[in-house]
Amino acid sequence: MAVSPPSSPVAALRWQDGELEILDQTLLPAREEWLTLRGAEDSAAAIVRLAIRGAPNIGITAAYGLAMQVALTPGDAEVAEAAAVLRAARPTAVNLAWAVDRMVAAVMAVPLQERTTAARAEAEMIHAAEDAASAAIALLGADLLSDARRILTHCNTGTLACGGTGSALAVVHELAQRGDISVLSCETRPLLQGARLTVWELRRAGIAHELLVDGAAAGLIRRGEVDAVIVGCDRVAANGDAANKVGTYAHALAARAAGIPFVVAGPTSTIDASIASGDEIVIEERDADEVRHAGGALLTPADTPCRNPAFDVTPAELITALVTERGIAAPPTRKSVLALLDLPFGQSAAGA
Amino acid sequence: MAVSPPSSPVAALRWQDGELEILDQTLLPAREEWLTLRGAEDSAAAIVRLAIRGAPNIGITAAYGLAMQVALTPGDAEVAEAAAVLRAARPTAVNLAWAVDRMVAAVMAVPLQERTTAARAEAEMIHAAEDAASAAIALLGADLLSDARRILTHCNTGTLACGGTGSALAVVHELAQRGDISVLSCETRPLLQGARLTVWELRRAGIAHELLVDGAAAGLIRRGEVDAVIVGCDRVAANGDAANKVGTYAHALAARAAGIPFVVAGPTSTIDASIASGDEIVIEERDADEVRHAGGALLTPADTPCRNPAFDVTPAELITALVTERGIAAPPTRKSVLALLDLPFGQSAAGA
Repeated sequence: MAVSPPSSPVAALRWQDGELEILDQTLLPAREEWLTLRGAEDSAAAIVRLAIRGAPNIGITAAYGLAMQVALTPGDAEVAEAAAVLRAARPTAVNLAWAVDRMVAAVMAVPLQERTTAARAEAEMIHAAEDAASAAIALLGADLLSDARRILTHCNTGTLACGGTGSALAVVHELAQRGDISVLSCETRPLLQGARLTVWELRRAGIAHELLVDGAAAGLIRRGEVDAVIVGCDRVAANGDAANKVGTYAHALAARAAGIPFVVAGPTSTIDASIASGDEIVIEERDADEVRHAGGALLTPADTPCRNPAFDVTPAELITALVTERGIAAPPTRKSVLALLDLPFGQSAAGA
Repeated sequence: MAVSPPSSPVAALRWQDGELEILDQTLLPAREEWLTLRGAEDSAAAIVRLAIRGAPNIGITAAYGLAMQVALTPGDAEVAEAAAVLRAARPTAVNLAWAVDRMVAAVMAVPLQERTTAARAEAEMIHAAEDAASAAIALLGADLLSDARRILTHCNTGTLACGGTGSALAVVHELAQRGDISVLSCETRPLLQGARLTVWELRRAGIAHELLVDGAAAGLIRRGEVDAVIVGCDRVAANGDAANKVGTYAHALAARAAGIPFVVAGPTSTIDASIASGDEIVIEERDADEVRHAGGALLTPADTPCRNPAFDVTPAELITALVTERGIAAPPTRKSVLALLDLPFGQSAAGA
């Protein structure tokens, strides 16, 4: 296939002069438009309508949203209210609550006149940590999957979703640096993050790719056309069960049946040590209109009743390895996952 | 949910005065337009562009297409050529080749002046047999799944796909006659037969239903929200491996992991005893534009490379039961499947 020449990845957000600009991902790939956010309310709204998305980027945006709000209204009550608005924007990704909690703690620890500076510093630290996490995940994941040439992925886990060049897609970028690979990108209904965003990123990076409907993945895996599956995650329980974009679990079942690796990649900010298993993860149910439409077209009678869970849970026993910036849990178990949280950057928790 | 009052199912085709009328399924559910077919070429073209679809209905349409052609050009060479055109329309459903072979044998057995009558009689017999098969499948399948209240299905297997009220959907109709049920209908990307056709049929029949994206099925099955999965089939190998619409195999994996029945329903005309296993089934790869679009909307850059297998194969070991008009193979094995072909209507081959 013909691909465009490589170009540098476009980050999903820019922090400048106390304002946050985000690339409106609802308009991609047709248009590249940047929005300016100025406080907690509009940051939360951008997260709700998926103008910005991906578990790590949701956390970063919430952090900057709170920092901007603190500059406007630094009082305890206002900070608590802004934190609540941001925390409620989406329920499944734990990075959101994690980032907001970190921000509130940093802000509340200092007097009013120091809060703006403290909040900005903390948000920038969260952002920098996610960028560094992406770089570490890329290297660890590519070492783990060094023999894989035909990679299947789901949803978007690149620079549009995470700090740096992403989580799962950061691994793909690193593998492409090391040799020839090809990527099967699942379209990811209902909101088509694969068809719209992952294809857009892979094309810009000059990485060979093919798009497929989500239901085609399992059959191609069964036919031996895939060497490894790698996906991101929105919340990982203490036992290694991982919530990710709806459709992920079926790919994990197919990978297991075919005997190929199924790898989950994400920063440790995605691990929620407070829940024992995936059964405790709240799965966001989104609007029926997302199912009824695709690309603006109505697919079914306008009043068709729908189910629209945005995520599903893949049990730890189907996950070959959980790749984080602090190391790899392979396989993820309560012991290996919790050990990751105590490790320095880049060291493996396998067998820990 | 509110549903329309029950009304009688609309058959996908009407045979009248030597002409075949088909409901153009590419326009559903927005418009109900009937097309008149007059020979082999236009019948094959209607099959290629999916104006008529579903393994049994493809066979019926090919039979009538050949009958109409024989009335125009009854010579041996012309019949052979028309048969070849029809056989080549789609590769995966075996009913197509089966119906064409039956027609050619019936036509070639009689002299030229008797061929029009013989061909019409044979096509009407094929059609009547598929209607009767649907009725038998409905009863056998509903007996088998008598405890299931929450049914998940894929693609369209109703009156728009088959004789009578369908295959898998005929079972759903019969279950709805016997008690309250609800149906989860997978949208079935890329061509959305679930969102467009199954929802349309269920609404007309007054059966409670919800639409979901294909990737949501496995997660809902895992969460205990489904009692049974029932699907149709396009070709069943002698060992019970079943090719069906792409996306089916993942549902079978999820059903097995959750311990719920995964049932395949179809007439015995779908069984291809000449192939030992599903590995020998040719999987049709369709145009990339089907993946790039949904409901007329472009979802991704117009030149994005795509994979578009139209079917996948579910191995027999994941199939709880194969329900045919001649009985049930539970589980399907080489012995139980081949035994079905020798049985009278409605008798079980289980344990045979």
